[in-house]
Amino acid sequence: MLVKKILITGGAGFIGSHLARRLIARGDEVTVLDNLFTGTRSNIYDLQDNHRFSFVLHDVTQPFWGQFDEIYNLACPASPIHYQRNPVETLKTSFLGTMNVLELALKTKARVFHTSTSEIYGDPEIHPQPESYWGHVNPIGIRSCYDEGKRASETLCADYAREYGIDVRMIRIFNTYGPYMHQQDGRVISNFILQALRGRDITLYGEGDQTRSFQYVDDLVDAMVMFMGLPSETVQAFFEKRGMRIPVINVGNPDEYTILQLAEEIMKLIPGCVSRCVYLPLPKDDPRRRKPDIRLAAELLQWHPRVPLQEGLSKTIAYFSQRM
Amino acid sequence: MLVKKILITGGAGFIGSHLARRLIARGDEVTVLDNLFTGTRSNIYDLQDNHRFSFVLHDVTQPFWGQFDEIYNLACPASPIHYQRNPVETLKTSFLGTMNVLELALKTKARVFHTSTSEIYGDPEIHPQPESYWGHVNPIGIRSCYDEGKRASETLCADYAREYGIDVRMIRIFNTYGPYMHQQDGRVISNFILQALRGRDITLYGEGDQTRSFQYVDDLVDAMVMFMGLPSETVQAFFEKRGMRIPVINVGNPDEYTILQLAEEIMKLIPGCVSRCVYLPLPKDDPRRRKPDIRLAAELLQWHPRVPLQEGLSKTIAYFSQRM
Repeated sequence: MLVKKILITGGAGFIGSHLARRLIARGDEVTVLDNLFTGTRSNIYDLQDNHRFSFVLHDVTQPFWGQFDEIYNLACPASPIHYQRNPVETLKTSFLGTMNVLELALKTKARVFHTSTSEIYGDPEIHPQPESYWGHVNPIGIRSCYDEGKRASETLCADYAREYGIDVRMIRIFNTYGPYMHQQDGRVISNFILQALRGRDITLYGEGDQTRSFQYVDDLVDAMVMFMGLPSETVQAFFEKRGMRIPVINVGNPDEYTILQLAEEIMKLIPGCVSRCVYLPLPKDDPRRRKPDIRLAAELLQWHPRVPLQEGLSKTIAYFSQRM
Repeated sequence: MLVKKILITGGAGFIGSHLARRLIARGDEVTVLDNLFTGTRSNIYDLQDNHRFSFVLHDVTQPFWGQFDEIYNLACPASPIHYQRNPVETLKTSFLGTMNVLELALKTKARVFHTSTSEIYGDPEIHPQPESYWGHVNPIGIRSCYDEGKRASETLCADYAREYGIDVRMIRIFNTYGPYMHQQDGRVISNFILQALRGRDITLYGEGDQTRSFQYVDDLVDAMVMFMGLPSETVQAFFEKRGMRIPVINVGNPDEYTILQLAEEIMKLIPGCVSRCVYLPLPKDDPRRRKPDIRLAAELLQWHPRVPLQEGLSKTIAYFSQRM
């Protein structure tokens, strides 16, 4: 197999670092580009000395250059606690970062993977959400910098594909967790694990009855790499047959748990855990429920999530407790 | 009254040229910035020699500089025939243009008017659409470059307002027509008037029973100028009282006409018109119906559309026939 030259924007982040590790392991040359806003050097520490690995400290809102076979566009703060710290930068990262990736792909004929998100469905009115669902998003709310930024970057990808023939593939990622996730990302799994490990109160918002689906990061990386490995003609034919012009699939774990179930699952996995659940008011614009329809991914990639919640949580708890 | 220094991006376009004329007439100094993609010099020909008028040939996707009291951000192709000719540029114009305006406002403390659009509601599921409606938009369709670009630029405005305190006011403009509208914009009023004046078939899409509301341009410019004339505290208090943080209002004419009624109205106004109606298939993603809820504009500005369809059409037909 030919060695591929691969660029990962946001490659020092949670998902990016897993992807980098996977691609290095299979023999590719990987360049990680990251501004380290939410990514960290420690996430890629084990790769630093690998001769097939390079790190570039750079902000994707500024153009960059390099000849790559494939570009994975992952750069963007993805948790409310991070993206709301600087909403304008988040929007710029999403839009300008994607634009710079697509411009580079246009010059170099690289294949592009774009990381989209279930957040483009907003607070959905149908369950589960298929790729054809247009979403329900507040354009001027406090989550909009992320949701609308990601929607507009999907639009960029779609239009660069239609107008310039860029080979771009998108995955709308649903809740994903695992080792290397940001401990202070303020999201439910990291919050609960930290609280449980420290024996503190576990904070639930609302009644704790909103449901979420949780995907272990290895399952996601499987899908990403498989999707990018398909020949262009296969991808094109698959989507055209389904009346879709733009290759986009949901990837997530459709098993639903309430937030309360998640808290209980985590407490069970920590021997002697003394935490108890407390309830706080629901934040503004928080989606009540979200669950992926993954039939397209299953058909296209013969992919299904394989890691059960308990197993994924165990590995994540082990990672967190080791870090504490 | 103090002379204001005002920048209008896209000021050589249809609405921009009306606004420029209005502001010059009331004594302001007006700079029009336009790349002339859809705007034309002929639209502002009558202003060229005015000593309070300046024209700058510039593309808003590139930063620009100047000290202004107010910036009206109008630059963006707005008709499908134009924006679909170059979807990527349309998206960039919308996003980067708005970003550059907001950056300039941040440096210079200018007040910003941002032109949004009823298209952010997409193919709406409720009628009429209030400002609180989140819309129903396809993120990766062929109209998305405009719809999502405009949504993301609203998000930019909202986030610059929240994060940096920029005084930004937005109007979501519904269908607007009048003299100086682009004759080849492919939109229904210009199409019908041109076809009727030339005695050609009038082309309706679908059954012609989709409804639209049509606003005469003078009514819109009234609302824009009134909105920008309000003190910051008034605007802030008005929206806060209604639980809204971001000042955005719909402006349009809520009188609904079917496309067929419009065609008939136009034919009536052209003496000896020999055209007849023919029906073509409905284009993809074409919204079936759209009607503004203008209660906020009415309360905030004591504004109501004043020009009846027949009067507005007469003036527009006169303009078109003079140009032929």
